[in-house]
This record gives sequence, structure tokens and C-alpha cells, in this order.
Amino acid sequence: GVLGSGDFARSLAVRLVSSGFRVVVGSRNPKRKASLFPAAAEVTFQAEAVKKADVIFVAIFREHYSTLCDLADVLAGKILVDVSNNTEINHHKESNAEYLASLFPACTVVKGFNVVSAWTLQSGARDGNKQVLICSNNQEAKRTVAEIAQVMGFTPVDMGCMSSACEIENIPLRLLPAWKIPIFLALGLFLCFFTYNLIRQVIHPYIREQKNKLYKIPIEVVNTTLPCVSYVMLSLVYLPGVLAACSQLYYGTKYRRFPDWLDQWLQHRKQIGLLSFFCAALHAVYSLCLPMRRSHRYLLIETAVKQAVEKKMTIWVEEEVWRMEIYISVGIIALGLLSLLAITSLPSIANSLNWREFSFIQ
Amino acid sequence: GVLGSGDFARSLAVRLVSSGFRVVVGSRNPKRKASLFPAAAEVTFQAEAVKKADVIFVAIFREHYSTLCDLADVLAGKILVDVSNNTEINHHKESNAEYLASLFPACTVVKGFNVVSAWTLQSGARDGNKQVLICSNNQEAKRTVAEIAQVMGFTPVDMGCMSSACEIENIPLRLLPAWKIPIFLALGLFLCFFTYNLIRQVIHPYIREQKNKLYKIPIEVVNTTLPCVSYVMLSLVYLPGVLAACSQLYYGTKYRRFPDWLDQWLQHRKQIGLLSFFCAALHAVYSLCLPMRRSHRYLLIETAVKQAVEKKMTIWVEEEVWRMEIYISVGIIALGLLSLLAITSLPSIANSLNWREFSFIQ
Amino acid sequence: GVLGSGDFARSLAVRLVSSGFRVVVGSRNPKRKASLFPAAAEVTFQAEAVKKADVIFVAIFREHYSTLCDLADVLAGKILVDVSNNTEINHHKESNAEYLASLFPACTVVKGFNVVSAWTLQSGARDGNKQVLICSNNQEAKRTVAEIAQVMGFTPVDMGCMSSACEIENIPLRLLPAWKIPIFLALGLFLCFFTYNLIRQVIHPYIREQKNKLYKIPIEVVNTTLPCVSYVMLSLVYLPGVLAACSQLYYGTKYRRFPDWLDQWLQHRKQIGLLSFFCAALHAVYSLCLPMRRSHRYLLIETAVKQAVEKKMTIWVEEEVWRMEIYISVGIIALGLLSLLAITSLPSIANSLNWREFSFIQ
Repeated sequence: GVLGSGDFARSLAVRLVSSGFRVVVGSRNPKRKASLFPAAAEVTFQAEAVKKADVIFVAIFREHYSTLCDLADVLAGKILVDVSNNTEINHHKESNAEYLASLFPACTVVKGFNVVSAWTLQSGARDGNKQVLICSNNQEAKRTVAEIAQVMGFTPVDMGCMSSACEIENIPLRLLPAWKIPIFLALGLFLCFFTYNLIRQVIHPYIREQKNKLYKIPIEVVNTTLPCVSYVMLSLVYLPGVLAACSQLYYGTKYRRFPDWLDQWLQHRKQIGLLSFFCAALHAVYSLCLPMRRSHRYLLIETAVKQAVEKKMTIWVEEEVWRMEIYISVGIIALGLLSLLAITSLPSIANSLNWREFSFIQ
Repeated sequence: GVLGSGDFARSLAVRLVSSGFRVVVGSRNPKRKASLFPAAAEVTFQAEAVKKADVIFVAIFREHYSTLCDLADVLAGKILVDVSNNTEINHHKESNAEYLASLFPACTVVKGFNVVSAWTLQSGARDGNKQVLICSNNQEAKRTVAEIAQVMGFTPVDMGCMSSACEIENIPLRLLPAWKIPIFLALGLFLCFFTYNLIRQVIHPYIREQKNKLYKIPIEVVNTTLPCVSYVMLSLVYLPGVLAACSQLYYGTKYRRFPDWLDQWLQHRKQIGLLSFFCAALHAVYSLCLPMRRSHRYLLIETAVKQAVEKKMTIWVEEEVWRMEIYISVGIIALGLLSLLAITSLPSIANSLNWREFSFIQ
Repeated sequence: GVLGSGDFARSLAVRLVSSGFRVVVGSRNPKRKASLFPAAAEVTFQAEAVKKADVIFVAIFREHYSTLCDLADVLAGKILVDVSNNTEINHHKESNAEYLASLFPACTVVKGFNVVSAWTLQSGARDGNKQVLICSNNQEAKRTVAEIAQVMGFTPVDMGCMSSACEIENIPLRLLPAWKIPIFLALGLFLCFFTYNLIRQVIHPYIREQKNKLYKIPIEVVNTTLPCVSYVMLSLVYLPGVLAACSQLYYGTKYRRFPDWLDQWLQHRKQIGLLSFFCAALHAVYSLCLPMRRSHRYLLIETAVKQAVEKKMTIWVEEEVWRMEIYISVGIIALGLLSLLAITSLPSIANSLNWREFSFIQ
């Protein structure tokens, strides 16, 4: 059974019908709404729909839950699936599912399907996240809903008892919250270092010697900026750990809460580290592209021609050769180690390591 | 208990014995077959084996299920594990497990272990997929079989009730079905563009100016072909979404089924996108290798010598320098963005994103 | 309830309190220990604590389990969670959890939380492995503990019945055991080939022609060493399979155990293969860096100058051009195929492939 006639209710009905379930839709105005639903779904009045179904998806807004109170008698003993979402995180004091359960104490309420979009329901879980998080205080009801999700092509995930409902309702509102600060930090650092390098490599030579070095902007200036950003970000990964250790030594206890800013910082270390790795990898690619450029080719030929005309046979500078050889080999080793760190932060790799192994690698 | 004496039955017995279970094998000809099984497994007549065991693995072909009907009385109340596979997808109308359940209504049938190969059973789940998909209408029986799988070193995955059996039986017959069309598409496109570039870069100069440019075939021609393939594939990822939107606008509804070819196309987008990324990445590697080649070195020296002999000191062409700088930096940024797309299509990353985050990145 | 006042007990209490549970701590000396625990946790005598709690975390060493025997009466009917670890693998004959269960037959024992570090408990599961492996013979107790773990922010994983306890207790003692031999093997091979290449490329020219080629050590010598190591490692991946097949042909059976050394070797193939891929990838990066070096630039200019002074206009050697073109393109294809192998060995990719697909790619 599906109560409601919004976008989600219709998508749910489409999917349930195409997964082989018999679907009955409860609406206040079944005649007008029937055309919106697939032909195989029976659209009728709410009370009748509820009578015919054992599992009822409540696809209406939290604000309208109380309108169902007239149906309390027919709903008694049924499984109600709360699929609702909020418009902002922790909008209400108690989760929608708990509110629904408090309105209908005679029903078994299961939270689920809210993490799935209407689009995914219609088209089937093709790519992206196929998980449907389910929680309920009743094991049997949870299992029933999990099996429906399974047949619909999703992967049910048991999230325990009803107290997880609030957490599940917050998930679809999230938009990479842990990445916001690290990304702005990286962009800020990039801008600073880019301006400095632009002045140093392009504007300064132009003012002092009237040399046009504008061609350096897209690659060379960016390429000297990236490792600076990467280094600063990497140091920001390890700094909060040191500060936390100092704070523990100072207060003489490990069981005192860190100040909020330090706590936030500790929580963003993984993202800062991954951005540091991303900058380092970009720096490697930019550096590898240097000899491919026309400008590199022209400078090389010009130097060779100048040397040939002046009949200078040797231009070998041992010190510069060594500096470059060591710089490159240290860079490759550093990038290799950072790659290892990045790979172990993949969830499926991290899950196969115990904490000793994880700490060892980190 | 294991019924059957085929390859799978023997591997199963080997694994069960080495996992510490007491195993009794039921055979029609126990004397002849005993030597095939490990010494610790007791090989006896079918009826006797069934009496001694609570959980019985039915490792015989579907065609021979009916030969077990004589044992119906002793089998009553036991858990039967159907490990059978089909030779083609959706071979029979009902799954083997459901057929077995209909033959022995007094037994509890569990589908499982069919996704595991005989080789994996013998050698233990070392690498690759360690999951054993299990389904049954009886929770208790499912749990018992799941625990046996756990002790054998596999990861049991609950696939819900018996109606999933058909899906589970189709899994081992699959051989990358979603990749077939995209791979042939990529190969076809590669061939077309390769032929065009071969004519343009090698055959045409040879006919017109008698220049031998054959050395360009392995790297330069391939390297100009790859980005063409990558571009066309990338456009094929985004085109069906546009067509789908047009179709929805035209029919004025989101709840109408797309035509089959469009539906198929929409389902292959992920694979086409990954192949597009693969071609782009190969193009990057080929391009980076260009300055490493002998031919690059020789052409550079020849140009330098020619310039020196003619005493031309300057060969700088501002326009060509800029074209290359911009081409390379745009290429790096595009590859970086495609890498992000490829990483989020890893199952373990996709599972940690909600649909808003996934759509945002895509 | 938490019994014990060690580091783990305190971290557990901190986490439980901050997850919203009411916590009572049982200690022999509650007055002295109370200051170590968060203020919200009630610290009292063991017997009293046990009376107030339904789920009791036993955070004391196995050696002191017997000191709890006085509490046997009050403990009866409660759920005991064994969180203990051993100091070495398979230290005792039976697992700590089974030992605890044998001491208190009237209690329900659940093994869990031992794979989590005290640090993770305090700070919350931020990164790394968030799984808590749980096993018990009692479904209901297991589910209760799983829900507690869920609320604490971990991912409970059902490991079946109590016989898995031993395996779970061994997990935190593991430190990448499968990687030890392959890594030492790779280091050994690297040292051998490095010495050989050092003699050939640096020491020999110095002795014979007094040429100083020391600058070649950090990059060129390493770069000729890496593919040798990679090749030998790759052959070591495929050799044991061949030996195993020969052994099966020789003995005429697939059901005979392989000798221990061959079995060990077969088990390390994945790690050897990944190290082979790592060396190949490093070789690719080193090779790409070659034209970036100062030494490359100087040698190029010196050659050009020499040619110009001698007025030699052509230095094209067709054979060398072809050798390099073919070498590079074969190298790129080989690296591409190895990347495919490496990607399919990621756990989350491997889990989405059936054994036919996995074997096909491998």
C-alpha cells in the first residue's frame, strides 16, 4: 500500500509494480489521481487502500501525518514505512519516524527508503549507492521491509533500532560536509601562492627587464604553486595531532575533551590529506609535461645554436645535474608513499585492515 | 551431509572436513566412490547419510532431483541446501531451488554456495569474491547455513526470501554482460579513427612527397586516435540523458517507459564513461612518452644543427608556444576531473555517498 | 555496565556516555577510580554495578576473569561482552570469550569490540576501519550488542557463533602478515639487480675509461633495476600455478594437499603481483622523468653543438628509432593491463565480480 500521490509516491508505485508486487494506492481523490499512477496499481480511497495492504508506505509530508488519525483503527497492526525527509538537518526535535510511531502506537513503524531519490526508484538502482538504510524497533517488520527492498533491487542495510531514524533522515540532506572547509582552504592557499609566483616569475622580470614571460602563466606558475599548497596542506594534516598531544600532556589526562576548533580540525585531516595528495599528483603531471612544450623545445634549440655559433663544446654543470637528479628521485619516492596513504583511505581497503595495520601505514 | 559425488560435491566435502565439520556423503555406490573423498568423510548409501545429517547439501543436477523422491520420508524436516547452477540464463521457468522445494514440501530449502567455484572451495577463499549469497523462506535455516559458510571462510550475504533464488542462479553464468557492447563500440571507434589518422599522417605524405613516416604508427598515430575515441565516448555518456529528457518533455510525463534501445543505452553509461576515461588516461601516458623517443631527439638535434649552420638565432613562435601551453593545461584539468568521476564509480566510494552528493559530482 | 578501570574500560565509558547511554562502572576501589571516568558515569562497587546493568562489558584481563566468580549469582542472566585481546596469536587453547562462557554458564557471552582501539573509542570512528566484529551463540544478545555498536558509530558485523571468537581475537594482533615475505623478496631482488647495474653502468666505465658517471645512480640505475624486479616478481606470480598443475598431473588427483611451501607460495601470489605492479608503475614514472633532467638537456645540446661544428646534417638511425617506439608502446600496453589486474584486486571491485569474471580478467 502507498499513501500519497506526490512524486515519490508515484515513483514508489512504478517501482513496486515493475518488481512484481501488487500495489494499492490510497488517495483522497482517487478518480483525479488515478491517471498519474501506472495502470497495474489500484488507486482507491485511503481507508480502503489501508484495509487491503499489510505494508503501507506513508509518502506524505510530516505536517500531514495527523490527517491520517481518522484511519487509526484500520491502520492498527499494520507495518507503516516512513519514507519522509526533512528540508534541513535536525529540523524537528524527534525524527519523523518516531513522530509517526507516537501518533499510531498500534502500528509497527519502519524507517526506510528516504535515502533513495525518486529518480532512482523509477529507473532502478543503476549506479551510485544502492543501499536502503532501514531501522525499526520490530525485528520482524524490519525483515519484511528489507526483503521488499531486496526484490526492488536495492541493498537493505540494518541500522538497528528506531533511535537511528534521526541519523537516517539527516543523510540525504548532506552535501559533502567534510569537504567544504578543506576545499576552501586549498583554494585560498592556491590563490596566495599563485599571486606570489606570478609576481616573481612574470611581473617582476617584465618590470625590471621588459621581458615578456606571459607564456609561463598556464603551466610554469601553476606548477610552482602546486607543491607549495601540497606541502602546507600536508603539514596541516600532522599539526593537529601534535597540538592534541601537547594539550594532553599539559592537562595530564587523555580523557579531557579537546577544544571544538581542534576537534573539527582533527576530523578534517583525511580530507586535507587527500587534497594534499591531489595537488602533489597534479604537480607530478605538470612537471612531466614540461619537456613536451614548444617553449621548452625552442629554448633548447636556441641554446644549442648559440653554443654552436660560439663553438663552446661543453656546458655540463655537475652541481645542477645532481640537484635535478636528487630532486626528481625524492619527488617520485614521496609521491609513491602518498599514493599508498591515499589507497589505504579507500573504504574497502580500510575495512580490510585492523587498527594496528592502519596506524602502521599512516 | 553431502548428496552427490561430482567435482563440486568432492570439493565441498574437502572444505567442510578441513573446516572441522563432520561430513557424511551419500552415494548410490559408496564403495566405488569412497576413494574420491577425503578419508575423514564418511561415504555411505544416500538414505543412511541423510539420516545422520541435519543439513544436507544437494550437489546433483536438477534433472536428477526426482531420483531423491524415494528419500522423501527421511529427508522430512531437514535443511536442504541447493548448490546447483544452470547452463544458461533463465533456463527453466522456476529456479532450481524452488523446484527442489516443490518436490520436498516437508523440507526447508536454502539456496546457496552456487556462486562459489569448486576450485575456491578446495583451496579456500584466497582472493576474489568471498561472498556466498544465501536465500530461503526460513530465517532459522538461512542463519544455520550462513554460519556454516562463515566457518568455511566465506562471507554469507542474506539475499532475502526464496524468490531471489532465480537471480542467484543466474549470477555465475554472467560474464561482464554490461561491458560487451561498450568494448565493441570502443574498438570500432578506435579502428575508424586509426585508419583515418594512418592515411592522413603516414600514407598521404608518402604518396605526395615520398617521405617515409612509418615510424609514426606505433605511437603518434595511436596517440592522435585515442583522444578522438575518448571524446566520442564521453559524448555518448551524456547524449542519452538529453534524449531521455526530450522524450519526457515530448510525452509530458516522467512515468512513461523509455523505448528499449534508450533504456539499454542509459544502463551502459557507466561502462562507456569508464572506457572514455581509460582512453583519455592512455592518451596522457602516450603524450608524456613523446619526448622520450629517439625520433624526437633526432628531430630536435637536426633542427638545431640546421639553425646553427644557417646562423638563425631565433626560432620562437609566440602563437605555437601559447597553443601548446593552453592545450596541455586544459588536458591536465580535464583528466583530473575524469579521474574524480572514475574514483566515485568505485563501489566502496559510491556506497559512502548519498544521491545528492553522487549527482553533484557526476 | 563496565567492569574494569584500565585504559580500554575508561575509553569505553567515555564513548558510551557521549553516545547517550547510562553507564555504571564496577570497580574494586570506586572512590579512588571515580576521578578517572567521565562525570556522567556512575562508579560503584562491582556487585552493585552488575545489579544495575543488563549488558556488562568485561574489560579486564583473562587472567583476572576468575576473580569475578564471586559475582556469579548477580551476573546470572546478564549479557557479558568480552572485549579482551591476547598478547600473541593463539596464545591459549580456547578463546577468551569461550573461557568466560565456561566460567559463567548462566550468562550469555558475546565477543566484540576487541578489534577497536582505545583511541578510536575515545575519538569516535573517524577514519580507518569502523567495523566491530561480533559473535555469540545467542541471536538476541548478539543483536542487542550490535545495536549498541551502531549507536556508538561503528558498523557491527555478524561473525556467526562463538566458534569464531578465536579468529576475532587474533585479528588485532595481525600486522600485514601476508606482505612480509613478498616485501623482503622484492627488497632482496632490488638489491641484487641494483648492485649488478651499478657495476655495469657506473663502476665499469670508471675503471675502464676513467669516466665519472656517478650522476646516473639516483635515477638511471634505479630505473634499469625496477623492470628487472618487476619481471621476476611477475614470473613468481604465475610459476606456482604451473607447479601446482604439474603436481596434480603427477599424482593424478586434484584432491591431494600441496606441499606446505607451495601452498604458502600460492597464498602470497596476490601480494607478489601487486608489488610487481608497483615496481612497473615506478619504472614508468622514472622513465617519464628522464627528459626532464638537466643531464638529458646537456647531453642533447652537446651533441647538437658537436654536429653543428662538424656540419653533419643527419643523425637519424632508423633502427634505433623503431626500437624505442616499439619499446614504449609495448610498455604502455603492459602497464595498462597490469593496472586492470590491480584494480580488480580492490576488495570492493572483486566483490562485484563472480568467479568466472574474476578468472577471465586474471
